[in-house]
Amino acid sequence: MKTDYRAVTLTGGFWKQKEDLNRDVTIPAVYTRFDETGRIEAFKCNWKEGMPNQPHIFWDSDVVKWMEGAAYVLSREDIPELQDKVEALIDEIEKNQGEDGYFNIHFTVVKPEARFTQRDWHELYCAGHMMEAAVAYYEATGRDRFLKIAEKYAAYIKAVFMDGTAEPKPAFRSPGHEEIELALYRMYRCTGNRDWLDLCAYFLNIRGTADDEPGDTTYCRGTQVQAHLPIREQFSAVGHSVRAGYLYTAMADLAGETGDEALLFACRQLYNDLVNGKMYITGGLGSTCHGEAFTIPYDLPNDQAYTETCASIAMIYFAHRMNRIERDAKYADTIEKELYNGMLSGLSLSGDAFFYENPLEIHLDNYKKQGGRYPITRRQKVFGCSCCPPNLNRVLSSLGQYFYGWEDGRVWVNQFGDSVFAEGGMKITQTTGYPVDGKIVLQAEGTETVYVRIPAWCRKFTANRAYVMDKGYAMFAGDGEIIVDLVMEPVLMQSATGVYKNLDKAALQYGPLVYCAEGIDNGNDIHNLYFDTRSADWKMEVCGKCGCPKFVGHGFRRIDPSADLYYPLAESFVETELTMIPYHVFANREETNMLVFLSYR
Amino acid sequence: MKTDYRAVTLTGGFWKQKEDLNRDVTIPAVYTRFDETGRIEAFKCNWKEGMPNQPHIFWDSDVVKWMEGAAYVLSREDIPELQDKVEALIDEIEKNQGEDGYFNIHFTVVKPEARFTQRDWHELYCAGHMMEAAVAYYEATGRDRFLKIAEKYAAYIKAVFMDGTAEPKPAFRSPGHEEIELALYRMYRCTGNRDWLDLCAYFLNIRGTADDEPGDTTYCRGTQVQAHLPIREQFSAVGHSVRAGYLYTAMADLAGETGDEALLFACRQLYNDLVNGKMYITGGLGSTCHGEAFTIPYDLPNDQAYTETCASIAMIYFAHRMNRIERDAKYADTIEKELYNGMLSGLSLSGDAFFYENPLEIHLDNYKKQGGRYPITRRQKVFGCSCCPPNLNRVLSSLGQYFYGWEDGRVWVNQFGDSVFAEGGMKITQTTGYPVDGKIVLQAEGTETVYVRIPAWCRKFTANRAYVMDKGYAMFAGDGEIIVDLVMEPVLMQSATGVYKNLDKAALQYGPLVYCAEGIDNGNDIHNLYFDTRSADWKMEVCGKCGCPKFVGHGFRRIDPSADLYYPLAESFVETELTMIPYHVFANREETNMLVFLSYR
Repeated sequence: MKTDYRAVTLTGGFWKQKEDLNRDVTIPAVYTRFDETGRIEAFKCNWKEGMPNQPHIFWDSDVVKWMEGAAYVLSREDIPELQDKVEALIDEIEKNQGEDGYFNIHFTVVKPEARFTQRDWHELYCAGHMMEAAVAYYEATGRDRFLKIAEKYAAYIKAVFMDGTAEPKPAFRSPGHEEIELALYRMYRCTGNRDWLDLCAYFLNIRGTADDEPGDTTYCRGTQVQAHLPIREQFSAVGHSVRAGYLYTAMADLAGETGDEALLFACRQLYNDLVNGKMYITGGLGSTCHGEAFTIPYDLPNDQAYTETCASIAMIYFAHRMNRIERDAKYADTIEKELYNGMLSGLSLSGDAFFYENPLEIHLDNYKKQGGRYPITRRQKVFGCSCCPPNLNRVLSSLGQYFYGWEDGRVWVNQFGDSVFAEGGMKITQTTGYPVDGKIVLQAEGTETVYVRIPAWCRKFTANRAYVMDKGYAMFAGDGEIIVDLVMEPVLMQSATGVYKNLDKAALQYGPLVYCAEGIDNGNDIHNLYFDTRSADWKMEVCGKCGCPKFVGHGFRRIDPSADLYYPLAESFVETELTMIPYHVFANREETNMLVFLSYR
Repeated sequence: MKTDYRAVTLTGGFWKQKEDLNRDVTIPAVYTRFDETGRIEAFKCNWKEGMPNQPHIFWDSDVVKWMEGAAYVLSREDIPELQDKVEALIDEIEKNQGEDGYFNIHFTVVKPEARFTQRDWHELYCAGHMMEAAVAYYEATGRDRFLKIAEKYAAYIKAVFMDGTAEPKPAFRSPGHEEIELALYRMYRCTGNRDWLDLCAYFLNIRGTADDEPGDTTYCRGTQVQAHLPIREQFSAVGHSVRAGYLYTAMADLAGETGDEALLFACRQLYNDLVNGKMYITGGLGSTCHGEAFTIPYDLPNDQAYTETCASIAMIYFAHRMNRIERDAKYADTIEKELYNGMLSGLSLSGDAFFYENPLEIHLDNYKKQGGRYPITRRQKVFGCSCCPPNLNRVLSSLGQYFYGWEDGRVWVNQFGDSVFAEGGMKITQTTGYPVDGKIVLQAEGTETVYVRIPAWCRKFTANRAYVMDKGYAMFAGDGEIIVDLVMEPVLMQSATGVYKNLDKAALQYGPLVYCAEGIDNGNDIHNLYFDTRSADWKMEVCGKCGCPKFVGHGFRRIDPSADLYYPLAESFVETELTMIPYHVFANREETNMLVFLSYR
């Protein structure tokens, strides 16, 4: 299956609004914050000791990810001001690229002597993001100046790391933060130059082998950076969850390209390990702030969840690659879960404030006890480590790629929203009220087969035409009008018993949307709220601000029949109204308690 | 009300067995471990740089607490070998006491220049424990050599800290770890010398005032060491939980002595704050390992509980003082809760292994994720910081003081167990099968009034004679036979809703005993076990090893109706047998999961 955001136009509805918000607010806001914090100026490479805003090791990546996000916007519309900003940055990169091809701000102006000596200092990670941005800008605008810079840099990296024909001798082999692997694959797909595929395979295949020099920090030797085993032996997701996601993405890219069955097997195992034991119901990944990492299966604490926005994005990438290879709707289900929940919660409704971590529970009193350390309870305009905001930029400006896939007359409809797909004589026009309403109307032209994803959350649906189910898709022959009506209703979801902290708790879900209760609506003691499993009588209201349903229904509040701290079992409840809002819009009003998993009775 | 362990003889039953175990196993075992680790040798004060076993700042206190425990044993029986060990230690203390009266091993042989410069280095804490041991040894044996040493040291401390008539000028005023305050009060009660009362009051009254120099560590400035407020303004238990307990004990001593109403008010507030919001159902105190401290009300995590054995012991001391002042059975209830649960869990059934922290939940997989750091899951023979084992020594050899109180012809029966109380012509002989059976038979002679505690856990009792209830006691006039039959049955206890992590959970309690489920009896997935609230049909068996009932009854085990990590609410249970053992005997077999609060249905 092929996918390309350029083959898709979002024409209305939920995601079109997010795409527009990203163009109008988020992309400008991220640029402004990067400018204010010295990240843009840094590209002039004239920082000297004693000056403010010493360029950080990952500043390059922050800005080039923003450039990538801007590139996708520029593919659809001419915005001279935006293009000028991108071109001005490319000017600086071109000016400051070494004759050997090297470009990295920190390792040019702060620690030039340390080039390629620190496995964990994100040098190749920054290079990878620059390559992605360069590919995106070329594909979006046809301008190849940035791509040539990136290719020159890639050639230098290949000479240093793979061929040993350029200086310096690097102190490590595979990078401490994966990213360049998937970027090199994109370079190869864009340019057709097999050097980049070879270098991608080199970095992947050496990882975790005896030949993989770990560099100088113990941090980089083991599971934390997925260097504990060769990639074909990695079946369990470990370590830093964003690094893991980028690695698995590149593994899937290589497996899809080469048909390497052992590698594909590892990808499938990793995917299953993630979705069956290490993923929050929101799609969140990474159970602990210690190393921003995975822990053990079923260890999914709600209040101490790390669940970085970037980890959800990395999971979208990985699932997207797997969907392309396997043509299985379950991967698109995961993408949907991430888009509507774990990823989108990273962005405020206003479009200019961000969460880095996305907990499933906020209990303000408990944060007080920790000195308010973690997780944060309000979105911030910028972070010191600001990887998530520009990551949102690039996902939200290239959403179309997740909506449709195609191959040989077949079209897969993976995501729902008003949109038009057009490619190679095939065209699909989609009209829907999703995610408020599950009715999907498709006008297909020039198609032999149309596959419509029936989401895993959907227990009942109807169609206007005959279909056959195939890997989670309803498969319709021919073209013409296809109407699929997914029955959407509020459903209480429980967790596997292994997630023992969620025992006797449930989360409300409506279609792909996971819900939460906020103190501002329900009183601050939300921990004592109970779903009513018999007569909740949910009333749905569509929120004008977020475009999603909120639900108000009947519930209970547990009260103490005694003033004692412990007393003989005597359950006391009062009836109450429960107000549930989509998880992704939590913390858009004042600071308040929040809970996804509530008790029920 | 007066209390004195010397007025009471334990004659049989549960606590007599523990008293004997302490004499025969625990006291010798602690001495042996202290000897093996260099703590005994250290009293020779001949350690020099480069030698092994550098004396630690709190080694003095470990050993003198053991001496105090031995003293209580020696009050009842002549054990020459034990007495020789104590006398040999006193020899060394006498030999190495400074001419000025000073004695501290660490500050003599390791850092002599640092005397009284480090508020947090336990110097006065060690001094206090030495005073307690000296008082105990004098009261137990009539030998006053150790007491004179302690008095000489106390006089020097008074001259340095209070009068300013001796060198050096101390770098702090009140100590960083409370203990000397209550010890000075014991010295005063023993000797009648008001100097010790004055010095006790001095250390207490200066605490947290503007005159209280905090010394050189920020750690010592605030709530962690209860120096954030003057003592009469401390209404909320904060900071290190053992320090807090020792402080509150001394505050109660002083309030009881002087009738200081403001101070007594603070004591009552602190007591209420503890039992109504910061105490585990086991009596455990201290919700976090960070600072071994209290956090905020209702924050009582079961798995991350710190609940140091010493904190339960300190609470026994505090409640004991409050009971003496207030003659309210609720304080003796707390002592009972601590004795049977939070304190006793610190000791293995074999008598020679110890817990420092006493969690209410063990989930071995989760410890694996933390690298097995905390809390420990098996009792240890000795700790680097070994305050708890000798603290158990001294409580278990002076238990009688908690059993009875007296004043002007009145006797209070506070704890239950075969025992004889005799004092001032009054005598009570108690016969009971407690805690297996709630029938208490008392033969009272020479008493005007006998008060029998009706425990807070008891919802129904009968008596053979007329009584009037007074502050939780059934008050019987005259003497003769009194039979009180406390109805004991297994009861499920829940927590106040504020303890939101215990919502939908209950703990089994039988009389004063709190129960737990261990994986070794119930299968390792104990987190999926449910109490049956309708037909548990508990079968009681008395365990030969621990002398307490264990219960086997009907329960449920939750199972997954789906292999998915999340699925629509569909409760699936299988019937199972539940085996519940007393909390204090957990971890006496192999390493296994453990849980106090289970789900119920």
